[in-house]
Amino acid sequence: MSDLHAARRTRLRERCAAVGSAAALISRPANVRYLAGGVPPGAALLLGPAQDVLLCPQALCDDAGEGRPAEDLRVLVLPAGGGDPALAAAELAAGAGAESLAVEEHHLTVTRHRALAAASTRLRLADLGRTVEQLRLIKDDDELSCLRIAAEITDHALGELLESILVGRTERHLALELDRRLADHGAEGSAFPTSVGTGPNSGRAGHRPTDRRVEEGDFLTVRLGARYRGYRCELGRTFVIGSSPDSWQIELYELVFAAQRAGREALAPGVEYREVDRAARQMLDSAGYGEGLEPATGHGVGLEIDEDPRLSPAAMGKLDACVPVTVQPGVQIPGRGGVRIDDTLVVRPPADGGPELLTITTKELLAL
Amino acid sequence: MSDLHAARRTRLRERCAAVGSAAALISRPANVRYLAGGVPPGAALLLGPAQDVLLCPQALCDDAGEGRPAEDLRVLVLPAGGGDPALAAAELAAGAGAESLAVEEHHLTVTRHRALAAASTRLRLADLGRTVEQLRLIKDDDELSCLRIAAEITDHALGELLESILVGRTERHLALELDRRLADHGAEGSAFPTSVGTGPNSGRAGHRPTDRRVEEGDFLTVRLGARYRGYRCELGRTFVIGSSPDSWQIELYELVFAAQRAGREALAPGVEYREVDRAARQMLDSAGYGEGLEPATGHGVGLEIDEDPRLSPAAMGKLDACVPVTVQPGVQIPGRGGVRIDDTLVVRPPADGGPELLTITTKELLAL
Repeated sequence: MSDLHAARRTRLRERCAAVGSAAALISRPANVRYLAGGVPPGAALLLGPAQDVLLCPQALCDDAGEGRPAEDLRVLVLPAGGGDPALAAAELAAGAGAESLAVEEHHLTVTRHRALAAASTRLRLADLGRTVEQLRLIKDDDELSCLRIAAEITDHALGELLESILVGRTERHLALELDRRLADHGAEGSAFPTSVGTGPNSGRAGHRPTDRRVEEGDFLTVRLGARYRGYRCELGRTFVIGSSPDSWQIELYELVFAAQRAGREALAPGVEYREVDRAARQMLDSAGYGEGLEPATGHGVGLEIDEDPRLSPAAMGKLDACVPVTVQPGVQIPGRGGVRIDDTLVVRPPADGGPELLTITTKELLAL
Repeated sequence: MSDLHAARRTRLRERCAAVGSAAALISRPANVRYLAGGVPPGAALLLGPAQDVLLCPQALCDDAGEGRPAEDLRVLVLPAGGGDPALAAAELAAGAGAESLAVEEHHLTVTRHRALAAASTRLRLADLGRTVEQLRLIKDDDELSCLRIAAEITDHALGELLESILVGRTERHLALELDRRLADHGAEGSAFPTSVGTGPNSGRAGHRPTDRRVEEGDFLTVRLGARYRGYRCELGRTFVIGSSPDSWQIELYELVFAAQRAGREALAPGVEYREVDRAARQMLDSAGYGEGLEPATGHGVGLEIDEDPRLSPAAMGKLDACVPVTVQPGVQIPGRGGVRIDDTLVVRPPADGGPELLTITTKELLAL
C-alpha cells in the first residue's frame, strides 16, 4: 500500500517538475488521501522540495477511522490551536528553500490563498490545477477491487430490503434501513445520502427521503452506495409496488431501461464522454422527455462519489480503460413519478468483454 | 417567514452600504439559506443592486426537501448545464449597473473568484468577509424555537436507546439506531455524523463508530444531534456499562462533570469567549489532563453545527444574549477511555434565569 502511494506521488512530482515547480501543496481531501493513504480530516500534504510531509491538525490525529498514512511519509502533528496545516506546509516549503509552490486553486478559498501568500513572501504561488484529479481518473487494481467490494455490499443491502414488506413504510425509514444494511455488510458508511422516492417522488434526481409511505401501485426508486476503504459506488433501481403495473409504468420503465442500456453499451476506451451521454439522452429526448433531463447521464466514481469524467452533452474528452463511471438516466413526470436506473461500471476494451458491470442487481421491472 | 428573511436581507444591505457596495453575492450555503429560506444545494443569492435574486442550478430546483425560498425573492432557474449560479449572479449585477460586488472570499475558491472577475470586467469585486456569519450569531425567536425542537428530538432519541440492551452491540449499530430514532421523532436528519465510542474509544473527540462491541465495565460515550428546519443541536453523554463503575471511572466522570458545569455556569452576556473556555479547561488542566485537550471547549450552533463563536483560549469577543453554544469538555486516557459531556445552551442574562439548557438528558453517571 505504501509503495502504491509513493508511486502516485512520484507521478505527481514528474508533472510538477514539467511545469517548473519543485514543491506542491495538496489540500483537497480526496487528493490528500489518494497520495498519502488514510489521513485525518483537515490534513494537508506537502510534496517536496525535500521529503514529503503530511501535516495534521492536532485534535483529529487520534482518529484512526479509515486506515493509516503511508509509512514513508513524515507526519507532522500541529499543536492544539496550531492553525491551518496548509499554512504550516507553506512555511515548511519556504524553509526548505523552495522558490515556488504549486497549490490547488480550485480548492483553496481566496482568503486561505491570501494567508498562504502572506505567510511566505519569498515563495511564488503557482496553480497545480486539477493535476491530482487527472491522475485519479484511471484506477489501479487496488482501487478497482475496493470498488468491486463496495458494489457487492450495495447489491446485498438492496437485495435484503426487497425481501421485506414495503407497503406502509416511509421513504425515510427505508433509507435508514438501507444504511443499516450497508453497515451490516461491511461498508464504512454510505457513499452519499441514500435516496428513496415513492409515488410522485419516484424517479426524481437527488430526492431526499420524506415521510411519504409506500402505497400499492407506486413506483419506488432507490439510490444507494457503500463506501469501502474510501471508495464509493452507486446503484439505483426502480420497482413497482403491487402485482400489476399500469401500462404507463411499463412503457416508461422500458424506455428508461433502453436508454440506460444504450449508455452502458456505448462505454469503451476511446469513446467521447458526450457520445455516451448522447446514446442515452437521445432515446429519452425523442420520446418527448428531453426538457426535464439532468445535465449529465453519468459521472466517474472513486474516492468521491462525483468525480471526473462527466458524461454530459458539453463534456470534452475520451474514456480510458479502467475508468469507473455511472450510467444513470432517469425520467420524472411531475405529479406521477418516474424511473431511474443507475449502475456503476468499469470501462474495458471490447476484447476484454466490454464494460465490467459492478452493480449486478437485476434490472427487470420487479413488482414487489 | 418571508418577512423574516427580508428583514435579514435589509440588515445585510445596510452593512454593505456602509462599506460602499450596492450589491453582494452570497455563496456559502448556510448564509444563502439564512437570507433566502429553503433553497436547493448550489444556489447563490444576489443582493441588489435592484431586486434580490436567488439563482438555482436547474437539476436541483425540483427538490422541495427543506422548505421553499422566501416569497419576495425573484427565483432564477438556470438551464441544464447552465454553469455556476455565482457567475450568472455576477453577470446580472453588472447588467443592472452595479459597479462593485461584495463576495464571500472565505467561501469562493481562487478559481471561482477568478472566473467571476473575468466574466464581468466592469465589476470591481470586494470582500464581504464574514458579515453574514456575524448576523447569524444572535438567533431570533424563530431560530431558537427550531433549536429547542431539535434538542427535544435529540433527548428523546437518546432516552429510548438507554432503555434497550446495549452489551454486545457494536458502536456502528448503536450509531445507526440513534439515527433511526432521530428520524422517528421528526428530525430531517442528523446534525453531524453520530458518534458512539466504547471502552478505549470512549471520550475520544470526533470518534467514528467502529465494529467494537459494548462490554461490561466499558465507558460508553455518545454524541448525537437532530437537524430540524435546518437547525442543528448537539448532545453528548457518557455512561458506564454494568452495575459497579470502577473508582477511576467515577473520579474521571466527576472531574469532567465539574469542568462542564463550570463552563455552563460561566455563560452570560458580556462574558469573553475565552473566559468560558478557561472555566472548564483549568479544572481539567490542574488535574493533569491539560495536554490532550481539544483546542476549544465549545462552539456556536445554528444552521451549521460548528459556527461562531468559538470557545477557545485565543478566541476574541464576548457572548451576547440569544447566542446558542455547546459546552463540551472531555478527557480521554489513551488505551483506557474517557468521558465527554456535551450540552447545547442559549446564553441568557442572569435576570432571565441564566443560560437556557436545551439538551436536558440527565448528567448523572448512569450505570446501564
